[in-house]
Amino acid sequence: MTRYDGRVKPVSPTETKTIAEACDAARVASRSLATAPAEQRNEALAEIARGLRDGSGEVLEANRLDLEDDRASDLTPALRDRLALDPSRVEAMAVGVEQVMRLDDPVGEILETRTLESGLELTKVRVPLGVVAVVYEARPNVTIDCAALTIKSGNAIVLRGSSYAERTNTALAGIVREALVEAGLPIDSVVLSIGGGREALSELATRDDSIDLLIPRGGEGLKNALKEVATVPVMYAASGNCHVFVDADADPGMARSIVVNAKVNRPGVCNSAETLLVDRAVAAELLPSILGDLSAEGVELVGDQETRSLAGDIPVGEATEKDWDTEFLDLKMSVAVVDGVEAAIEHVNRHGSGHSEAIVTGSSEAAEAFTSGVDAAAVYVNASTRFTDGFEYGMGAEIGNSTQKLHARGPIGVRELTTFKYVVRGDGQVRA
Amino acid sequence: MTRYDGRVKPVSPTETKTIAEACDAARVASRSLATAPAEQRNEALAEIARGLRDGSGEVLEANRLDLEDDRASDLTPALRDRLALDPSRVEAMAVGVEQVMRLDDPVGEILETRTLESGLELTKVRVPLGVVAVVYEARPNVTIDCAALTIKSGNAIVLRGSSYAERTNTALAGIVREALVEAGLPIDSVVLSIGGGREALSELATRDDSIDLLIPRGGEGLKNALKEVATVPVMYAASGNCHVFVDADADPGMARSIVVNAKVNRPGVCNSAETLLVDRAVAAELLPSILGDLSAEGVELVGDQETRSLAGDIPVGEATEKDWDTEFLDLKMSVAVVDGVEAAIEHVNRHGSGHSEAIVTGSSEAAEAFTSGVDAAAVYVNASTRFTDGFEYGMGAEIGNSTQKLHARGPIGVRELTTFKYVVRGDGQVRA
Repeated sequence: MTRYDGRVKPVSPTETKTIAEACDAARVASRSLATAPAEQRNEALAEIARGLRDGSGEVLEANRLDLEDDRASDLTPALRDRLALDPSRVEAMAVGVEQVMRLDDPVGEILETRTLESGLELTKVRVPLGVVAVVYEARPNVTIDCAALTIKSGNAIVLRGSSYAERTNTALAGIVREALVEAGLPIDSVVLSIGGGREALSELATRDDSIDLLIPRGGEGLKNALKEVATVPVMYAASGNCHVFVDADADPGMARSIVVNAKVNRPGVCNSAETLLVDRAVAAELLPSILGDLSAEGVELVGDQETRSLAGDIPVGEATEKDWDTEFLDLKMSVAVVDGVEAAIEHVNRHGSGHSEAIVTGSSEAAEAFTSGVDAAAVYVNASTRFTDGFEYGMGAEIGNSTQKLHARGPIGVRELTTFKYVVRGDGQVRA
Repeated sequence: MTRYDGRVKPVSPTETKTIAEACDAARVASRSLATAPAEQRNEALAEIARGLRDGSGEVLEANRLDLEDDRASDLTPALRDRLALDPSRVEAMAVGVEQVMRLDDPVGEILETRTLESGLELTKVRVPLGVVAVVYEARPNVTIDCAALTIKSGNAIVLRGSSYAERTNTALAGIVREALVEAGLPIDSVVLSIGGGREALSELATRDDSIDLLIPRGGEGLKNALKEVATVPVMYAASGNCHVFVDADADPGMARSIVVNAKVNRPGVCNSAETLLVDRAVAAELLPSILGDLSAEGVELVGDQETRSLAGDIPVGEATEKDWDTEFLDLKMSVAVVDGVEAAIEHVNRHGSGHSEAIVTGSSEAAEAFTSGVDAAAVYVNASTRFTDGFEYGMGAEIGNSTQKLHARGPIGVRELTTFKYVVRGDGQVRA
């Protein structure tokens, strides 16, 4: 681990800053960036893509050194894989930046216009938030994704990457900062901070004079640590305890395919399903085949009494109370039989995390009850929960996925990284 | 002071709850309220207005006892006046509730529809936040205003009033809760919590399992206390360090009338101006008359060196560095001469609180530079800062005024008390 010396790692051009200075620099940069034209922000993105291709060799060398570092021996094979880059992964980053570049410009969008009784002309216009900070694990592509999304949305960013990726992130941030200079934008629109552990994190999380939004991407430990100290507004990237409810009027084939997809398509991500609920009216008919499908896909099953009694030869363990609240993030699923859609809604609202919930049904009444009664960012009718994603929603990349209700729910893309401003024009109006 | 016994004061019908139980009850109530039709929510509002008129005598008697209580002797005359009710103030509350009732229903509004590449039909629909908590000073009308706004927007509310208004608030909350029952809505859609001081406040601020949004209305002490403990999302009601900038191209008469109105119309509120900035190019010509107007209105003036040298006989004290950052909330104003619109923007962004800022100018270039460069909830061209207000903006009543950038900026009305949900309909789509 790098010892905390209160400094931000030098990036290109070489200079060091304390975290306080980094926050101040990003704040100053944000003022010019916020009013820079779309062409200039897009030019910076084009330069980043070019810089990634031209500088691929240096990035890969830096990445090799990170992987060979003693501390990297702590990493599990899965985490090493997340950290590791190869030419195709660098190219994928460049392609991602170009996709963000081609999105509609969110800045300056007119959200509303109104003539007030006083004769004032009110315009509600979309503007950047200012300065965003992202704290993330050892995934170098996050450095580039987040920088691209914030530049596109006119925001400056303080990137707080993992020390495991220190050299890789320094190389990547150097490419981004050179691109900013090429495009005539302030170099401190993107600032990388490395080292210092929890102490530096606390400092960042309490700089509410400079940071407008802090997004932690990481485990529950990071989130809880931040909740305790943060005075900066924080948007917590989601945990997803998602459900699929098979209603009495579900098409059996559709139910089987949606349940299996929601569970096994990519079990380690937040929009995968963790619990299956089946209406009692069709449980005897449908559960054996669905459980059989899941079991055949290698899913470990735990269930309530009724599920277990209907499982026949399929092994289904006894679900504990804790299982209903658990995001397994693995090939494991809890299963319950419920008394109709209202009971399903109640179960989901009690145990769900407000991420993504699905009903499979042919009944428009049941669909309406479920979509209005379930309190979640995304509610699906006859589709897999796996679709909650910025790309799938046509929003481009996402910086995270929010299960909070304030500001933005679901995928956080470039529009969600903005706020608005009322611009009010008059001809001398004063208040009576 | 009422000693904290961890209980919520009994209201109608009489029952006591701990704060934890109150949060739970409001959470449960919020589920039914969120899906109740607009007619039913409006019926509850009509019943509240009726209840206020029918029960005016009991409310006034409760208010008399609050004012006669020993603890009320702590109150300044201004605070006693805020606490005191009379028949016309009760009637004004009833009229306010009826105005909220007539607003467009925010719940269920379709914000966006899109067909995704996967063929899914995505609808982004406005939904209530869930449970709102408001902490406020001894102003009984806030009890009714906040209850009306949250019922209208489909949210349950935990009201945390001041102990100075304990009896008045209990009577008012009783009227609201009876109205909810009359309309067939859950009685715990509105819950009043009294007593317990900071301990109870901390408990409320950390109930992130139940409270979706906490709005403190009160001084900086309350805000800072909450910032330190809150895990619930908090929206801070604004402090307003607002500026008026008189540009080189300002109409002199308009400049004089806007500056005077922004300062003296109601100096104790957050959208009043605290600092006047004048372009050096017109300072010698305009400042003497503007300073004379302000002085004639009884405004105490402090200024920079150049302002003082131009003030002639008008008394202008020396402005300290702290004055530029101070919300006087009084008949006092700081005045500076600046080098054009860019210097004005820099001053505003350094010292302002992001509330309301105004430029007086005949130049469209200066107006454009100021409105795009200034980072604030509301930016005015040729109008007084005093217009930042829910009623003036045609939004109906407001529960507060936000200077944060997340979720909502400026007046917080019924729409700002909502979030959204993605409802996504398919015909069996699964993710590849």
